Amino acid sequence: MKRITAVLLLLCFTFQFVLADEGMWTVDNPPLAQWKERYNFEPSKEWLENVRLASPKVGGASSGFVSPNGLIATNHHVASGYIARLSTKERDLMKTGFYAKTTADELKIPDADISVLESFENVTDRVNGAGEKGKSDAEMAQLRSAAISAIESECGKATGLKCDVVSFYSGGEYWVYRTKHYTDVRLVMCPEEQAAFFGGDYDNFVYPRFDLDFSFLRVYENGQPAKTPHYFKWSEKGAADGEFVVVSGYPGSTARLLTVAQLAYQRDVGNPLQAQVWTVRRKALEDYSKLGAEQFRQAWPGMRGYANSLKRLNGQQDGLLNPRNFARKEAEEKDLRTKLAAKPELDKKYAPAWNAIANAYGKLPAMSRRLAFSNLTASRLATIATQIVTGSVEAAKPNDKRYPEYRDSRLESLRSSILSPAPIYLDMEEASLVAWLQEGLKVLGPNDPFIKAAIGDAEPAEVAHRAVRETKLTDPAARKALLDGGPDAVAKSTDPMVTLARRVEPVIRELRDWNEMNISDVETANGTKIAQARFAVYGKTMPPDANSTLRLEYGKVKGYEEDTTLVPYKTTFFGLYDRAISFDFGSPFELPKSIIDRRNRVDLSTPLNFVYTADTIGGNSGSPVITRNGEIVGLNFDSNNQKLSNRYWYIEEDEGSRAVGVHTAGILEALRKIYDAPELVDELLRSR
Amino acid sequence: MKRITAVLLLLCFTFQFVLADEGMWTVDNPPLAQWKERYNFEPSKEWLENVRLASPKVGGASSGFVSPNGLIATNHHVASGYIARLSTKERDLMKTGFYAKTTADELKIPDADISVLESFENVTDRVNGAGEKGKSDAEMAQLRSAAISAIESECGKATGLKCDVVSFYSGGEYWVYRTKHYTDVRLVMCPEEQAAFFGGDYDNFVYPRFDLDFSFLRVYENGQPAKTPHYFKWSEKGAADGEFVVVSGYPGSTARLLTVAQLAYQRDVGNPLQAQVWTVRRKALEDYSKLGAEQFRQAWPGMRGYANSLKRLNGQQDGLLNPRNFARKEAEEKDLRTKLAAKPELDKKYAPAWNAIANAYGKLPAMSRRLAFSNLTASRLATIATQIVTGSVEAAKPNDKRYPEYRDSRLESLRSSILSPAPIYLDMEEASLVAWLQEGLKVLGPNDPFIKAAIGDAEPAEVAHRAVRETKLTDPAARKALLDGGPDAVAKSTDPMVTLARRVEPVIRELRDWNEMNISDVETANGTKIAQARFAVYGKTMPPDANSTLRLEYGKVKGYEEDTTLVPYKTTFFGLYDRAISFDFGSPFELPKSIIDRRNRVDLSTPLNFVYTADTIGGNSGSPVITRNGEIVGLNFDSNNQKLSNRYWYIEEDEGSRAVGVHTAGILEALRKIYDAPELVDELLRSR
Repeated sequence: MKRITAVLLLLCFTFQFVLADEGMWTVDNPPLAQWKERYNFEPSKEWLENVRLASPKVGGASSGFVSPNGLIATNHHVASGYIARLSTKERDLMKTGFYAKTTADELKIPDADISVLESFENVTDRVNGAGEKGKSDAEMAQLRSAAISAIESECGKATGLKCDVVSFYSGGEYWVYRTKHYTDVRLVMCPEEQAAFFGGDYDNFVYPRFDLDFSFLRVYENGQPAKTPHYFKWSEKGAADGEFVVVSGYPGSTARLLTVAQLAYQRDVGNPLQAQVWTVRRKALEDYSKLGAEQFRQAWPGMRGYANSLKRLNGQQDGLLNPRNFARKEAEEKDLRTKLAAKPELDKKYAPAWNAIANAYGKLPAMSRRLAFSNLTASRLATIATQIVTGSVEAAKPNDKRYPEYRDSRLESLRSSILSPAPIYLDMEEASLVAWLQEGLKVLGPNDPFIKAAIGDAEPAEVAHRAVRETKLTDPAARKALLDGGPDAVAKSTDPMVTLARRVEPVIRELRDWNEMNISDVETANGTKIAQARFAVYGKTMPPDANSTLRLEYGKVKGYEEDTTLVPYKTTFFGLYDRAISFDFGSPFELPKSIIDRRNRVDLSTPLNFVYTADTIGGNSGSPVITRNGEIVGLNFDSNNQKLSNRYWYIEEDEGSRAVGVHTAGILEALRKIYDAPELVDELLRSR
Repeated sequence: MKRITAVLLLLCFTFQFVLADEGMWTVDNPPLAQWKERYNFEPSKEWLENVRLASPKVGGASSGFVSPNGLIATNHHVASGYIARLSTKERDLMKTGFYAKTTADELKIPDADISVLESFENVTDRVNGAGEKGKSDAEMAQLRSAAISAIESECGKATGLKCDVVSFYSGGEYWVYRTKHYTDVRLVMCPEEQAAFFGGDYDNFVYPRFDLDFSFLRVYENGQPAKTPHYFKWSEKGAADGEFVVVSGYPGSTARLLTVAQLAYQRDVGNPLQAQVWTVRRKALEDYSKLGAEQFRQAWPGMRGYANSLKRLNGQQDGLLNPRNFARKEAEEKDLRTKLAAKPELDKKYAPAWNAIANAYGKLPAMSRRLAFSNLTASRLATIATQIVTGSVEAAKPNDKRYPEYRDSRLESLRSSILSPAPIYLDMEEASLVAWLQEGLKVLGPNDPFIKAAIGDAEPAEVAHRAVRETKLTDPAARKALLDGGPDAVAKSTDPMVTLARRVEPVIRELRDWNEMNISDVETANGTKIAQARFAVYGKTMPPDANSTLRLEYGKVKGYEEDTTLVPYKTTFFGLYDRAISFDFGSPFELPKSIIDRRNRVDLSTPLNFVYTADTIGGNSGSPVITRNGEIVGLNFDSNNQKLSNRYWYIEEDEGSRAVGVHTAGILEALRKIYDAPELVDELLRSR
């Protein structure tokens, strides 16, 4: 009995305070108390500022400046979209790797966008104050949206920076984030993908791991390497056992503050449906990739992406399906609601929020398949057409009534994405679109509004073939003509991809509106209340769910137990050769020639990968792993299996949950002995 | 519905026929049909005979002749008792390893016993025929026992070999096994234990594994290396991926043909009790080992043994606790009983057997603790005293009424074991005996007959101290005097260890008799019936449970999937260095100096360990892994975690269950480059 009480007490305790090394902390609220208490670390204001300004966002992922001359270190798999864009059938940099001895040799990447968070400001009162004047969830959402749009536009004019109002805690807080963007980005160095992604999807989310998953980029301004006075000093020794580390980066999404009703929906409907969508898309690419080596090259980045997403989703779903975990979430919710009930005036205000969300989610399963399958995003050309068509409708509205992604402040980057000259592979486009429409037809049936609009009485293959083969959108100039021609040009276009997009546009819009009205607005309105209830009961002890904004995570370098043995805190080049040879170099364990040839030059005992307890998630790929001295000792690139369900809850270090990084000593050794890059090594070591 | 039917059909199918690569097959019944069908392998009579005669038993484990001059290859951990016996504080061969350049340098091992199965004969009819004349289970057991004793003694006289009648299928079959014994055994070569047991208990039952777990012994006759024309040719290349292999050796014990009642007892009472016994003994040794380096050296073999046993038991128990597995056993039993019910005359004869066993086991839990704790085997001196005392009682009986281990045919080896001059460590003896008696007192209580006889009103520490410190049995001459003096001398001895053994002897005897009468005899009588029922329903499709007799197992060299990645079929020296360095050489991942020093001489890509699907279990340690050409390609030394519960059922290869071997190419590389043993390499490669 005593023991049970102790366990209950402990459980209650954990509801209120974060667990060891838990948390993806916003830059306005770093976990200073935990750092001091647990690691005796008290960073200066300058230390914190340096971390923020030295942590650029690359696409949806992370990176670090590692010299004052715009040099960026990130993962190979973060830069792989860029690398693929620079590759052709004849010059496949994914296969060969790349190294620019001088800045003149660096390759300019089409449509690159790298941003740094220059400053940030709390605008919660203004946004929520505006919203409070509304009479319904939808009206409140509209008023908040208008306030956000006004803040973003004022801020843009005042600072010349890109300004985004970001919501945290389901609307419990709003901040404006001001970012500086670099669009002239060049490739400096990357290893062969086979070195970066050694072990392929098998070794993804697995540790011990042996991957050279790094690459170097450089940002330019006015044709010159940008001056980046905020950067991380490269550690020659790299991460040490037991060392305290901070990880900075852009974790994409967590769902830890969801209600039980929201989680149950994810488990029972949302995740299985998501798996179905990704599986269809992956299969289309896989089938296509089997047609030949060039087809494989084209399809590979997508295949890899879907495989990664599916493996991760599977691990997350495993976590949700574990009744013990789910019971913990139920207990947490119960604890908050019980404590809230003890404060009647707050209870009256906030308690209905849980039911409101549960009621909204009650309507969702009936609509889920339509929401999931009514889109054309399986094809890049169809996506472009959809953006042009939807954009032409949105453009007619006042700025603050538009969908957020079509507001003035975002039009420029949307336009440059639409006009990107990045190659489009027609055979692959057609294969993907056919497979997608066929699955849609199967799932939704011939009488579904989207299916009727998209294919009518025709066959999916016929529709897709005509749209892909006869469209002019393959040429960026044709896209530009439509954008410049405005709504009228779009409405009159007879381009079959545009007409396809036009036919489905009203259906997609209707579904989106339904979803906003019935789900998201309710979710936001009531999520805000729950967040406020949580603040009132526990204080602001938990960081908000991840949302692709800059976060700080922390922990220590540490191995763990698995099954009945120990897993070491690091791996070495010895292990890379062992794993390749122990499979007789069978795929995906083949080594690139450079690594085979340099076997006798490499110091095999150099650390290669390592693990640490920081609370990371997808989007943290490429994150600098730094010490209390601000040195970079590794690049985050993966999590192990044990950590996958940390989307829903923090998994304690005792359960073996770990982030995986590439070790800076291993990167140096590879640059020196395998990739003959002394100039780059010099730049890294000089910048200290 | 169709699918369910298919699954049920499949399940039924598996009840009758062995699964892929299943089985520890007796030498009279090798799985020729499976070999032919699955691997297109049809061995000659000579091939089979060579395997039998080239597979000596070493202690309770296995080995192989690898030259015509008596050279034996086995595991280091199989020979470690021998190696420890040759070690002293000053010359610790466990730490330093050993190599004899010439036969003159080979070290003679005290009390070694290595045997070869020369011939075998089915004596089921004679034994069971004798038994059938009995009127009760006990009387039948007595009659069988007398018949067995007569067969053994006749056979011994006729052949000059050691003859043992062995029971299979719970008495469904009896065979006489005639063995040739070698007692002059010498140590030829062993690596440091740290190389053989790298990773310690953590990496035990774990794969990927990186252990040089091998050693070489030589048997002598008349002071000369014995002529052993039957031996395995050493493969320089070693095991290859996908290769068909046969494993020959002495698997100790399985429990696959037990009834559900017997299994449930193991799960609920037997295994937890066994774990308690081993835990007490291990802890006593661990506490003792902490007193200093020399104490650690003395206690280490025992500690290692108990840790191994406990880790294995834990894995087995995990298997039993899985309801899915247990349901399978229940379904198997139901299938047999249902099919039996269709044959009324057989059903009448055999069906009551299950209830008889279940009834017997119903009585067992009440006695289990007494049976488990009423003994003195925690101390070697007390064991010797018990053997002398019990022997003096048994000697007074006619040969065929004695406990089997005290029959004439076994007296010689018992005597040499009692008189062994192997060192006894008094401090460790006392520590072990005190801990054991203390636990016994705690578990059984002060009024228990054994406890009263052993310690009476005294303290356990007092009794143990006096018995260990004042006994003369430390001197083999004192033991000899008692053996030679006969029952009278034993009865009159005032040696405190002998008087302790004398006091508990009647209690132990009573418990043993109770157990025989109420459990084992019932088990045998009814187990025989169940075996006969199984033969009648399915035929002799399953090999009998393992019982330390020579068996043949088979399978193929093959990696597997684990969690979400692939585990390779082999490991290399690269991996050994990786694992050591990735723990910064922290214990138990330190490397001996020889391996560190020779790092640049070793061809790191040489295979070290490998896995295969053969159905092995404890006792198979040291088993030669051989190809269809009769070449030895590895030495079996471990199983992975996934395989631990194969004590109770065969685990299919798809579940990742694997045996682990040391690769012959790795052994050669170590002999050449690390241990400077060209003479031994020559002998291995010349013998081809």
